[in-house]
Amino acid sequence: MALAYDGAIQRVIDAFSRLPGIGPKGAQRIAFYILSAPQDEAQELAEAIAEVKEQVTFCDICGNVCESSPCPICADPRRDHTKICVVEEPKDVMSIERTREYRGTYHVLGGAINPMSNIGPADLNIPKLLERLKDAQVQEVILALDPNIEGEATTTYMSRLLSPLGITVTRLASGLPVGSDLEYADEITLGRALAGRREV
Amino acid sequence: MALAYDGAIQRVIDAFSRLPGIGPKGAQRIAFYILSAPQDEAQELAEAIAEVKEQVTFCDICGNVCESSPCPICADPRRDHTKICVVEEPKDVMSIERTREYRGTYHVLGGAINPMSNIGPADLNIPKLLERLKDAQVQEVILALDPNIEGEATTTYMSRLLSPLGITVTRLASGLPVGSDLEYADEITLGRALAGRREV
Repeated sequence: MALAYDGAIQRVIDAFSRLPGIGPKGAQRIAFYILSAPQDEAQELAEAIAEVKEQVTFCDICGNVCESSPCPICADPRRDHTKICVVEEPKDVMSIERTREYRGTYHVLGGAINPMSNIGPADLNIPKLLERLKDAQVQEVILALDPNIEGEATTTYMSRLLSPLGITVTRLASGLPVGSDLEYADEITLGRALAGRREV
Repeated sequence: MALAYDGAIQRVIDAFSRLPGIGPKGAQRIAFYILSAPQDEAQELAEAIAEVKEQVTFCDICGNVCESSPCPICADPRRDHTKICVVEEPKDVMSIERTREYRGTYHVLGGAINPMSNIGPADLNIPKLLERLKDAQVQEVILALDPNIEGEATTTYMSRLLSPLGITVTRLASGLPVGSDLEYADEITLGRALAGRREV
């Protein structure tokens, strides 16, 4: 009884099932989509996957992913090089860029301190940040780490590490998300929003 | 301002976004997963996609996807070749195989009659089914189409087409799904379950 598909179909289903956020049903749906899609669309996908591993590298300055180091942001003289925004992952850079509120540069740590997963400060891209801070041009480091336990631990560690250097160290504001209901805010978020209240 | 990723990353995100069930956030997550995954896992995925288009073909007899025609089910002498189960898509074959209740053969129509999408009987794999029915060996055709409007229309069309041939034409039972609540059954399903009641 054939409970698995014939060779190549099952292989593509298995390969897609290993990706994050795709279950066996979703992988099956994608496999049949690819089978019925035009040849060039499938080829484009296969080539994009192969190319991304070959062509993508990390910026020597900020640690962000890019095609050639330094990355376009670090190389851009119109960016404000007196500010460095420290984030966990490359995708966080994109999130901040989308706000269109920030014109400075970035530094990607490549994760956050997480004793449960055995990730300590030594595993993060911190030495290169300290290197960058020797440049007298830098005036402010903005810690934009995830507002969870690991992010908080990293923020605390980084602020202790950086404060002796005489550079302004800031962090993102905690508070109520825009568009949310006060009623549904958790007490920690509401407490932070209260502590960080501003005159209007 | 960099609102898109550098070349290769954005290309892989775009390629994944086009797949069914994957949105831009999911595609981004997959792209970074691939970037951090071992080289051979990414290569396996790229090769599986390329191979599935090259190697997969359709069975000349039943229309199911397979690596060589006839497919393993049509070629298997231990299967009951007096029964043909008619389904819409190759994935429906797998669903029925998983029940382990059916030992006959299949016929994949490649869709259902859908006037809204301009799919008529002429677009379905019906001529080959009629060809197969000329074989005196076939005694029963089981219509296992989706229990929705398109599937019902196709069932009606097929049963009218096949009944003059003197072959038993059956369809899957409609009724309450196992494990469900009577209270939450819709009236059409409950009506069908009542009409199809069996002595215990």
